[in-house]
Amino acid sequence: MIKSINHIAIIVPELEGALDFWEGALGLKLARTESVPSEGVEVGFLPVGDSNLELMKPTTTDSGVARFLEKRGPGIHHLCLEVDDIEATMARLREHNIQLINEQPQAGHGGRQYAFVHPKSTGGVLVELYQLSDQ
Amino acid sequence: MIKSINHIAIIVPELEGALDFWEGALGLKLARTESVPSEGVEVGFLPVGDSNLELMKPTTTDSGVARFLEKRGPGIHHLCLEVDDIEATMARLREHNIQLINEQPQAGHGGRQYAFVHPKSTGGVLVELYQLSDQ
Repeated sequence: MIKSINHIAIIVPELEGALDFWEGALGLKLARTESVPSEGVEVGFLPVGDSNLELMKPTTTDSGVARFLEKRGPGIHHLCLEVDDIEATMARLREHNIQLINEQPQAGHGGRQYAFVHPKSTGGVLVELYQLSDQ
Repeated sequence: MIKSINHIAIIVPELEGALDFWEGALGLKLARTESVPSEGVEVGFLPVGDSNLELMKPTTTDSGVARFLEKRGPGIHHLCLEVDDIEATMARLREHNIQLINEQPQAGHGGRQYAFVHPKSTGGVLVELYQLSDQ
């Protein structure tokens, strides 16, 4: 079951400049930042209702996020859906011949599990699936 | 105040084909469709938590949505934030020199008011503001 939009990820060249709009002008609040060296990104989370905006700044030049920024410029990168059972969701997608980027759930921060679905199978949207650890 | 992500709008060439993924494979449910001839789109809404995915299919060849589809292909088009007071939010954005696409709130379906913020001022994200009618 799909529970919520966990976050919308937005690629930014710098967190500070992006926060001038999202926090300064619009009035959202930065709840926390995380550095994820393994993915070459620094991220900032701004809660909105039961969801979040996730600002992602590349910290290397060779990550997927860095290449996206260079090729397409800043903007929305992916949509993350929280599911109650990521293995069951992935099995269901495979039954429908949907192409997954990650064949197995990946271990993320704080015990969460995640996997990406290929935009070729979704109509151009990079979709991330998330199962949080407290389930 | 920003209350929630009201919807994420996704441009699709055909609703039926897009629903094969979002409804058939992923298990979301199409709650309703709307035809909006003034904007040249047919839209379908799929609730997710306290938000929605909004699938937008162009019905003419000369709308902004049709041009986006032709130029960039299908994918995420804009992010819509529900606010409690759209006039106050727009005034605040102007104070921060944020460029608005609509200088006044526009009247939408069911009494809602909306306005778009220019992606030049947001870091590449087309942002829509929404005030629902029951406030």
